[in-house]
Amino acid sequence: MQTRIETDTMGQVSVPLDKYWGSQTQRSINNFKIGRQKMPLEVIRAFGILKKAAAVVNYDLGVLSRDRKDIIIRVCDEIISGSLEDHFPLLVWQTGSGTQSNMNVNEVIANRAHVLLGNQLGKGKRLVHPNDDVNKSQSSNDTFPTAMNIAAFTMLADHTIPCFKKLKSSLEKKAVAWNDIVKIGRTHMMDATPLTLGQEFSGYASMLDHGLCALDNTLPHLSELALGGTAVGTGLNTPIGYDKKVAGAISDLTGYTFITAPNKFESLAAHDALVTTHGVLKTMAGSLMKIANDIRLLGSGPRCGVSELMLPGNEPGSSIMPGKVNPTQIEALTMVCAQVMGNDVTIGIGGANGHFELNVFKPVIIYNFLESARLMGDAALSFKNNCVDGMEPNREKIAKCLQESLMLVTALNPHIGYEQAARIAKKAQEENKTLKQAGLELGIVTNYQFDQWVDPNKMIGRP
Amino acid sequence: MQTRIETDTMGQVSVPLDKYWGSQTQRSINNFKIGRQKMPLEVIRAFGILKKAAAVVNYDLGVLSRDRKDIIIRVCDEIISGSLEDHFPLLVWQTGSGTQSNMNVNEVIANRAHVLLGNQLGKGKRLVHPNDDVNKSQSSNDTFPTAMNIAAFTMLADHTIPCFKKLKSSLEKKAVAWNDIVKIGRTHMMDATPLTLGQEFSGYASMLDHGLCALDNTLPHLSELALGGTAVGTGLNTPIGYDKKVAGAISDLTGYTFITAPNKFESLAAHDALVTTHGVLKTMAGSLMKIANDIRLLGSGPRCGVSELMLPGNEPGSSIMPGKVNPTQIEALTMVCAQVMGNDVTIGIGGANGHFELNVFKPVIIYNFLESARLMGDAALSFKNNCVDGMEPNREKIAKCLQESLMLVTALNPHIGYEQAARIAKKAQEENKTLKQAGLELGIVTNYQFDQWVDPNKMIGRP
Amino acid sequence: MQTRIETDTMGQVSVPLDKYWGSQTQRSINNFKIGRQKMPLEVIRAFGILKKAAAVVNYDLGVLSRDRKDIIIRVCDEIISGSLEDHFPLLVWQTGSGTQSNMNVNEVIANRAHVLLGNQLGKGKRLVHPNDDVNKSQSSNDTFPTAMNIAAFTMLADHTIPCFKKLKSSLEKKAVAWNDIVKIGRTHMMDATPLTLGQEFSGYASMLDHGLCALDNTLPHLSELALGGTAVGTGLNTPIGYDKKVAGAISDLTGYTFITAPNKFESLAAHDALVTTHGVLKTMAGSLMKIANDIRLLGSGPRCGVSELMLPGNEPGSSIMPGKVNPTQIEALTMVCAQVMGNDVTIGIGGANGHFELNVFKPVIIYNFLESARLMGDAALSFKNNCVDGMEPNREKIAKCLQESLMLVTALNPHIGYEQAARIAKKAQEENKTLKQAGLELGIVTNYQFDQWVDPNKMIGRP
Amino acid sequence: MQTRIETDTMGQVSVPLDKYWGSQTQRSINNFKIGRQKMPLEVIRAFGILKKAAAVVNYDLGVLSRDRKDIIIRVCDEIISGSLEDHFPLLVWQTGSGTQSNMNVNEVIANRAHVLLGNQLGKGKRLVHPNDDVNKSQSSNDTFPTAMNIAAFTMLADHTIPCFKKLKSSLEKKAVAWNDIVKIGRTHMMDATPLTLGQEFSGYASMLDHGLCALDNTLPHLSELALGGTAVGTGLNTPIGYDKKVAGAISDLTGYTFITAPNKFESLAAHDALVTTHGVLKTMAGSLMKIANDIRLLGSGPRCGVSELMLPGNEPGSSIMPGKVNPTQIEALTMVCAQVMGNDVTIGIGGANGHFELNVFKPVIIYNFLESARLMGDAALSFKNNCVDGMEPNREKIAKCLQESLMLVTALNPHIGYEQAARIAKKAQEENKTLKQAGLELGIVTNYQFDQWVDPNKMIGRP
Repeated sequence: MQTRIETDTMGQVSVPLDKYWGSQTQRSINNFKIGRQKMPLEVIRAFGILKKAAAVVNYDLGVLSRDRKDIIIRVCDEIISGSLEDHFPLLVWQTGSGTQSNMNVNEVIANRAHVLLGNQLGKGKRLVHPNDDVNKSQSSNDTFPTAMNIAAFTMLADHTIPCFKKLKSSLEKKAVAWNDIVKIGRTHMMDATPLTLGQEFSGYASMLDHGLCALDNTLPHLSELALGGTAVGTGLNTPIGYDKKVAGAISDLTGYTFITAPNKFESLAAHDALVTTHGVLKTMAGSLMKIANDIRLLGSGPRCGVSELMLPGNEPGSSIMPGKVNPTQIEALTMVCAQVMGNDVTIGIGGANGHFELNVFKPVIIYNFLESARLMGDAALSFKNNCVDGMEPNREKIAKCLQESLMLVTALNPHIGYEQAARIAKKAQEENKTLKQAGLELGIVTNYQFDQWVDPNKMIGRP
Repeated sequence: MQTRIETDTMGQVSVPLDKYWGSQTQRSINNFKIGRQKMPLEVIRAFGILKKAAAVVNYDLGVLSRDRKDIIIRVCDEIISGSLEDHFPLLVWQTGSGTQSNMNVNEVIANRAHVLLGNQLGKGKRLVHPNDDVNKSQSSNDTFPTAMNIAAFTMLADHTIPCFKKLKSSLEKKAVAWNDIVKIGRTHMMDATPLTLGQEFSGYASMLDHGLCALDNTLPHLSELALGGTAVGTGLNTPIGYDKKVAGAISDLTGYTFITAPNKFESLAAHDALVTTHGVLKTMAGSLMKIANDIRLLGSGPRCGVSELMLPGNEPGSSIMPGKVNPTQIEALTMVCAQVMGNDVTIGIGGANGHFELNVFKPVIIYNFLESARLMGDAALSFKNNCVDGMEPNREKIAKCLQESLMLVTALNPHIGYEQAARIAKKAQEENKTLKQAGLELGIVTNYQFDQWVDPNKMIGRP
Repeated sequence: MQTRIETDTMGQVSVPLDKYWGSQTQRSINNFKIGRQKMPLEVIRAFGILKKAAAVVNYDLGVLSRDRKDIIIRVCDEIISGSLEDHFPLLVWQTGSGTQSNMNVNEVIANRAHVLLGNQLGKGKRLVHPNDDVNKSQSSNDTFPTAMNIAAFTMLADHTIPCFKKLKSSLEKKAVAWNDIVKIGRTHMMDATPLTLGQEFSGYASMLDHGLCALDNTLPHLSELALGGTAVGTGLNTPIGYDKKVAGAISDLTGYTFITAPNKFESLAAHDALVTTHGVLKTMAGSLMKIANDIRLLGSGPRCGVSELMLPGNEPGSSIMPGKVNPTQIEALTMVCAQVMGNDVTIGIGGANGHFELNVFKPVIIYNFLESARLMGDAALSFKNNCVDGMEPNREKIAKCLQESLMLVTALNPHIGYEQAARIAKKAQEENKTLKQAGLELGIVTNYQFDQWVDPNKMIGRP
Repeated sequence: MQTRIETDTMGQVSVPLDKYWGSQTQRSINNFKIGRQKMPLEVIRAFGILKKAAAVVNYDLGVLSRDRKDIIIRVCDEIISGSLEDHFPLLVWQTGSGTQSNMNVNEVIANRAHVLLGNQLGKGKRLVHPNDDVNKSQSSNDTFPTAMNIAAFTMLADHTIPCFKKLKSSLEKKAVAWNDIVKIGRTHMMDATPLTLGQEFSGYASMLDHGLCALDNTLPHLSELALGGTAVGTGLNTPIGYDKKVAGAISDLTGYTFITAPNKFESLAAHDALVTTHGVLKTMAGSLMKIANDIRLLGSGPRCGVSELMLPGNEPGSSIMPGKVNPTQIEALTMVCAQVMGNDVTIGIGGANGHFELNVFKPVIIYNFLESARLMGDAALSFKNNCVDGMEPNREKIAKCLQESLMLVTALNPHIGYEQAARIAKKAQEENKTLKQAGLELGIVTNYQFDQWVDPNKMIGRP
């Protein structure tokens, strides 16, 4: 590999000849050979946005020259477009402030600017200095948390929430379509009183609805940006008015409303917004696990299970058992849920372990957050498209179960009392009879009464 | 122990003569000898409230006689007052629906009513039947989650939130009082640019402020009550209009606004409201762990630590080291935080593992929730009273650190650039000199310039 | 409440007249009003054991007089017997070193000794000083972790492990008894090839077997005692040979082999032995959750579920649904498992957050450990006694499922290949036919061949 | 993209022309667009090993022809070497049994064999069938868990354990080198009695030592292979003796001892071996977090912290603060630890949620396991190389702290008692004096006595 020499305050470093990064990026590559997880591109893209916003505002406030501003913006646009992807090689497992990724961005912008201005990498006098110009009015300590919040917010708004809404809508459609299919309820995994299949699914939709609402509630905190706090939150080396203006510029660039954090000491030292929001993602992981488990059970069979639902068969399910079809979408989804529940612990520990003016678990927090938000959205959509949308009720099996169930006896309570009703249910179970048979034999109800009182269609709570 | 015989649909059971509970409570005692954690009294009290509300509404809607209503209310008032505490012996580790605790309440009300009406326990015809009257228009499946939400909501509103507010207010007072004490900042546990001690504490207050706001956002979901859903959410065996009226009655009794859940299938089958709210408690546990750790470090010493704060000495700290004083409040608080972070996993797992129409991890969820809410409130208050309120800054040590810090060099960036500033800092560190000395020796700044540019009091972000 | 005055190095404190504790215990009561969880009695008992051992060895090594030794031992025996229980009022949420509980023990021993020697509490000259005599050659920093390990080890050895073994043995009995009941297997919750019910249960027993083995492997580390390390692990103020002798004395007193920790710096600063052992308890919680879930599903019904097992009906299951019986033991057990999985996070966080020479999450670690160990043992035994022992196979249902299953087709693979076999299974499923019908109609197998090749009794892996 | 048509029991699928995978792999690609995490290559490599072993044993036992065996082995060797990497495109988020990855391997082997035998992809009669030949005597249900255990075991043995050992050895070297540097101890983050820096580090080494031992103890369970159990553990469609022989063949190929699982029902239905082993990795994550935190604190400064250690400065630490150097290796390491602690929850949940004969959280379990094992090894080694090896004690600062510490007073206990000693310490602290001054002024000790009794070098526990 051909290299060139780059220099920083600690000395010289060899850098690949064709890469825009500089010495500090290279030091990180050299010193951190830990796993393979790269800093998420969403974070790099958010850096592109914030560096552009900072350049604009620095120019507006008179601390950056026009030519520097213009060329910085040009490179930022390339970063935002994704075309410089190969120049951001750093891993999640680096300094806990993300300083090295901030410097990676600063270096790429400075060097790419140098080239765009007609120079050769590593040669000639630079117009744009990575620290003094690209990083002007900034510190890693306020840029990285700003990038975290931008990346997290936009991932939720652009991806996770829309996917959840699609799944919710698909469940709602089932709730409507199946509104009249009366079926046996199950509590404690045992037969209970009836409800409709639509009602069952309305509960699932309601869970997602509440989850989406809870997610929404967390967005305002997430929209608070640290930028303008610089090294420790005081805003040292920033021009007056910078913080509000730069949040405005970021809002313009993203199309979402971001504000400058009212308290920047918090914004550097803690990531409670991300911890709280991920807590809601974790709740939703629990919701989806429950929903998925129910559907898995309802679809179990085909001959020896509950079999009230028929799930779409997307692939041969077994390498040895011919003809087997499995609820694979559910399995992928529930694995994602388990992942998110673990990520929540990682993020919680990261969030709790900051010291003084800076939390240095930033990369692991945002990495796990984005993983959860991406996976949850993807898995919800895949589950919707490849499972929920194509499910069909097994009306025959549903009807059979409903008829056989002993818990229809509950409808007798108001007429004969809990204890007499229990006698009937018990006799029916022990002697393998229908409830009516048992009730008649015990002389507790008449044929006419039983038919009047015990009608599953009247037991589903509709006037 | 003297006993009497009680009977249920499964047969006879021996019950202690002087206890109001009946056969089903006793069966639970006999069958569940697991640990010692009792069903929290807050849940029992919430049952008192909801049973009273149900009796009132059942009477209003014409399905319960006046005499039954009156006597049920009388016993409920006793339960709410706490005077029947000894009659609720059941453990958390019972049926996952809390049915046995619901029946415990039903049985105690029926039996206590029997006695209040002048009868002897176990003798004579009962006016009030535990299932047909006390439990009228109810099921364990809707009463227990209703009790969960009432207990959780009131614990938060009456205890946890007020305690957090007191701690926040105490931190805010420190932020104001110490607003002018300039000190060295620390990032990565290393010396950084200055800020004031007040600014540092304003960040802590801001964390609690956001936490309280996040907690507030979760209360509406928590205020949705399952009552009226009965066995599976359909409201079987309830009179029309019952659910809304009973939520109104509970609001009246508690003084907080509760509403009937718009979707009762969710309310029985899932506890996402509790999972989400506890997620916020977990975030706040992380916040408090960070704050407490900072204060522990700031108070470390007395001679070989950071020693910027002097914490109140409440007890001798060591059985062997005479004169030792330790930050014990911080230790209790951070242990509570660790507990809450673990409880969050328990609650998350419980919430995710419901099946079909009923989640049967109800007792473990509410037990952990109330434990967290209680402990967090108590620990926050104890920390405030016994630590934060009495802390004092060590002005001498603070001033000494500020003066010695090399990171004041950052103020030179706008004047001489990052690289020259780094040269100064490096020389000062290596040769154990002051920044000014190093800067002068390097010929980068003049004496006058240095004094003009490097003034900690101007580095704290105030116009 | 009548009080007396007690004095320590910080001054005077009012203490209840009839209690043996002294000033430092009282300060803890006054300063820590956090929750209600008391320091577990198992820890107090372990303190009784180690204080006795220390007194014996201190006497043997010539640093404690005979009369002091004798009276200390006498009180320790009372503590071990449990008769002084009321004199240990402190909470888990205290100083993280457990110093206050160590001093509670020291104070109770000194004061009780004073009374046993014929004096009045708070009056007269003390023979035995809580620090200088009872705590001789000790520090909270080595006694508390010693008590932790003694309490944890004995809880496992006396309770948790024997209970697990009983459950394992019960499962093994089922494995043997049901060894010949061929049933349909289920993978992905879908019908699969057959196995016997006994084989299914042998898997459960094997899981417990491996769990017990893993638990055993952790005991040696748990048997290492910190005692002799005193304040920071150096053994300051202990006589030569003390540490080994005192571990020997504790072994004698408990009947289990304890050794002195080869490295006492670790023993004070970390609790990895407890973290690792609890990790195994957490694994076993996962095992039991899986086993319990399976049995819950196998027992589901009675008419609309899998119904291959009939679980004992121990209580009426519903307050509204007459005759309902639920798998309540499973629910209690799985709630315990969720608790243990959360406790594992608490303990992990506690274990990871020690600083320098001392971990100060000791009380929360041992509290959660003992809770898990107690609950797991109790729940395993309750599950065994009240569920597993009484389960019966539903042979009729098992046979019906076996016959109907399509996955018997797998036996054809070696004869006709996977693809032809799949055609048969598919046709049977789509046209709701038996495999044989489908195979004959497709002309792939003859009647004779089918009967020869497809025999569930030959598909269960026995020569 | 050019494609060819592949066919399976469900019909036709378009597959990229130049890829060896077949229809089932392609169906997985089409149906699972969830995240980007690929099935780890370690698992693919383990599949190469086990497929080779199966072919050898199938041939030996007479159920596979020599020509099929030979060509299968040839492709397996390519897979093991890594040269077919591009042909394994599947994600972690697929079916929970890993069936699709097993079929991916089967298809690649069959198609690659076809080409190696001189044919064109998708054309001509195949000698080797993916199910009937490559998968002979196998099911996904036994191959995938076998691949999990092989991958996990070899990652630990080849990478994680050696890296931990190197770190341990580096810490041990420090313990020896610094054995005589007496320093102040710290408990509760407050000054305590002295120990040597070497003793402090011996505790860290001891933690790793115990961790390594605990890891070792888990390996036997991990070495049990499921192979031979096929679909549900019964071994359907395997020749007699196959399971033992195939475990032997895998041992030969890997150089590690694997055995056939004594109970294959467990091996398919549960992954307790992985859960337990990861529990130990989690303990070690806690150990490393504690060690790293200590070193971070010891290295804090350079002027306003503890500063007893000087850590190597590997990179400029700040984009805004010139000359700043941070403990970045520690930050990367502690982030890894947080990740592992979260992964433990994911794995625990995955392990607990199997149903009946098969756990279908296999991919998420092994993905997280390998991530943890890889990261822990990498991070431990990076920490060793880039931090521990280069650390130096700051002897001046250490000596200064030692001299000033008040807790040297503890050495007076045996001579003057705890209470008198406390008076001295208190006076020294309040009046900012040395202990000797205070002791003399109080008239408790003489100059000579003090010098005799209080000598830090005699307080470190050495005869």
